[in-house]
Amino acid sequence: MIIDCHGHYTTAPRAHTDWRKEQKAAFAASLAPPPYPDIPDNDIRASIEGSQLKLMTERGVGLTIFSPRASAMEHHVGDEAVSTRWAHVSNDLIARVAGLYPGRFAGVCQLPQVPGVPIERSVAELRRCVLQLGFVGCNLNPDPSGGHWTSPPLTDRSWYPLYEAMAELNVPAMVHVSAVTNPSFHATGSHYLNADTTAFMQLLQADLFTDLPDLRLIIPHGGGAVPYHWGRFRGLAGMLGRPPLEESVLGNVFFDTCVYHQPGIDLAREA
Amino acid sequence: MIIDCHGHYTTAPRAHTDWRKEQKAAFAASLAPPPYPDIPDNDIRASIEGSQLKLMTERGVGLTIFSPRASAMEHHVGDEAVSTRWAHVSNDLIARVAGLYPGRFAGVCQLPQVPGVPIERSVAELRRCVLQLGFVGCNLNPDPSGGHWTSPPLTDRSWYPLYEAMAELNVPAMVHVSAVTNPSFHATGSHYLNADTTAFMQLLQADLFTDLPDLRLIIPHGGGAVPYHWGRFRGLAGMLGRPPLEESVLGNVFFDTCVYHQPGIDLAREA
Repeated sequence: MIIDCHGHYTTAPRAHTDWRKEQKAAFAASLAPPPYPDIPDNDIRASIEGSQLKLMTERGVGLTIFSPRASAMEHHVGDEAVSTRWAHVSNDLIARVAGLYPGRFAGVCQLPQVPGVPIERSVAELRRCVLQLGFVGCNLNPDPSGGHWTSPPLTDRSWYPLYEAMAELNVPAMVHVSAVTNPSFHATGSHYLNADTTAFMQLLQADLFTDLPDLRLIIPHGGGAVPYHWGRFRGLAGMLGRPPLEESVLGNVFFDTCVYHQPGIDLAREA
Repeated sequence: MIIDCHGHYTTAPRAHTDWRKEQKAAFAASLAPPPYPDIPDNDIRASIEGSQLKLMTERGVGLTIFSPRASAMEHHVGDEAVSTRWAHVSNDLIARVAGLYPGRFAGVCQLPQVPGVPIERSVAELRRCVLQLGFVGCNLNPDPSGGHWTSPPLTDRSWYPLYEAMAELNVPAMVHVSAVTNPSFHATGSHYLNADTTAFMQLLQADLFTDLPDLRLIIPHGGGAVPYHWGRFRGLAGMLGRPPLEESVLGNVFFDTCVYHQPGIDLAREA
């Protein structure tokens, strides 16, 4: 079976995205957000059947690993209550999609990360999604600040509480940033790819997988710049006195093939 | 003739790099830096003949476009006086290399950039290097903050005074960051590649080359992630209502082939 490991709910029903706008406006005005709307199953079906499910069928994809829209996670917006509620309703919507099409979608959750708030605070939502909603992983944002890169590297011990919960639940994380507020960067044109390259280099430099041998991380978008510059990273591992990449990183880190032209896909396979 | 368009003086004489340490220490102590040392020609020859020149001969490279060590530019260190002096002595050393080996090295200058200081203040050193030292270009740091990305995009009008001087002098710039202080990034492992990708996306989004049709920019390290993700950038140009990349960017932007394994080099050629 072909599994698409990197699907986002980019076509979520209007009522869901409209509520998010209201939630943000309410936060800005120091008000409580309005109640989350009732979204009928038919609206969810309409949002999936003409897009994701149609493409899956056309392309022979049996199962899509499916998570909330990455750019809409916006961990830099609001506060912990805003992020927690937004993650909760976004994840619930993913669970409804998975429930409507048994066997076709496996859920991956958005975490309620907030810049400067310890990652421990995201563990409860991970547990809820895996244990109650049947999700198979989470998206982990290495830069919840939205392009200011104020968090410590992913190998810092402050991230370990999440990793330990992931190991206990036996689920991986996809390392995936969200929208960007730094005008230097374009979300999908540079920030996403930069984050992928940045994360890989962080993992190359430290002993995260010696500490946590069962931890599995997926780096999306074909690994950012990494496969194209494989010789650079192989060389850096040597220069920095690190073990060969095959030993130190590649047992725990996986790249997807989300690369949008054939020579790039060929390289990802070959490198 | 084979021209290596991206050489840095990574083997500069000890007296030069030691002076830099003293300059930084003096700045930290609010003291004047010591006098710059006399460096004999023989020390420069010794630093070049066993490394750059030897490799050029072995590999059949006729000419190297040669600039100060990129990671040592350190525009985030000190203040305008520190950056100006450091650029000056580093560029003078490049000129001496070029003078010792006529026809083998063409100089490219380090600019005395400082975060928050207008780029106009770098124009005098560009003029000096081109008009007095015979240099053929400059390295332009899009992030003189060292990994905090506090400058406006390269397409912002605040950069135009440098571009106008470059056009007048008929020289290109290589877009090249320097050392990094943000612990998220590793200089050569992620910051360099991220900056290349970031710069390309900035150029894709705006009309810089409509305003300045003679401006030429080189994006090093094989264009960062760009050739590997050419389909992504082609798609983004369409989605953003920009002209095709061939029209809007590729007449003015050049990638080098500084990619350290064969599949990557092949892709850069093919993409």
